[in-house]
Amino acid sequence: GIQMTSFESIMEFSQFKTNEQGLIPVIVQHYKTREVLMLAYMNEESFDQTIKTGKMTYFSRSRQKLWVKGETSGHFQYVKSLTIDCDYDTLLAKVDQVGAACHTGNPTCFFQHLAGTEYNEANPLEVFEIIYNTVVD
Amino acid sequence: GIQMTSFESIMEFSQFKTNEQGLIPVIVQHYKTREVLMLAYMNEESFDQTIKTGKMTYFSRSRQKLWVKGETSGHFQYVKSLTIDCDYDTLLAKVDQVGAACHTGNPTCFFQHLAGTEYNEANPLEVFEIIYNTVVD
Repeated sequence: GIQMTSFESIMEFSQFKTNEQGLIPVIVQHYKTREVLMLAYMNEESFDQTIKTGKMTYFSRSRQKLWVKGETSGHFQYVKSLTIDCDYDTLLAKVDQVGAACHTGNPTCFFQHLAGTEYNEANPLEVFEIIYNTVVD
Repeated sequence: GIQMTSFESIMEFSQFKTNEQGLIPVIVQHYKTREVLMLAYMNEESFDQTIKTGKMTYFSRSRQKLWVKGETSGHFQYVKSLTIDCDYDTLLAKVDQVGAACHTGNPTCFFQHLAGTEYNEANPLEVFEIIYNTVVD
């Protein structure tokens, strides 16, 4: 079905600390799995539209225009919650992700391992975790 | 005890896409709870030092110098894994956080609610989740 939720924000975009391009970075996290999906940027118009429509809307730095995530792929991100950090220069969006977040088809844009241990893939409790997520669902 | 793990990175900093200041943003996530803790920035020196020492080391934009997270507070972040996103312009660090990540004393820098539903706080499965995390531990 169509998910359409309108929000109001406790703070306005003008109160945020933006970067040199007038943008604020947005960390996007799946609200249920807590997987970090991507980092994108918002200007005032995209922030206001996100709040109004409940669909994550960014400012594309490469195309220099408003970007409704999923408008071509159908992979919309529905806002569950928005928080800002202690110094007002980064947003965290918890979203319900339709399909894959990444244009490569990966569930998350962060799939290229650089260093460290991929403890998750060797998690002996994975079955329990799947059951847990099913119960949460 | 002293946790000190040295890593090697599959990619070098010079292969990353940096911003106008030669920095790359780093999303910092607790490896166990999956809570997003903060966003910080790295230059080449801080990336190399993070890999070498296993302790998250940033470039402080306000102080314009290398910043070993926890060097004054004791709230070190030990690297569990580092990944890079599909277009090589953002890092995701999963860390073991000592104490609070935020200088305010909050566990995460993202504690200021802007919009949406704080579903977590009303989670009827919270007890099950606590048990689950204890089992994982």
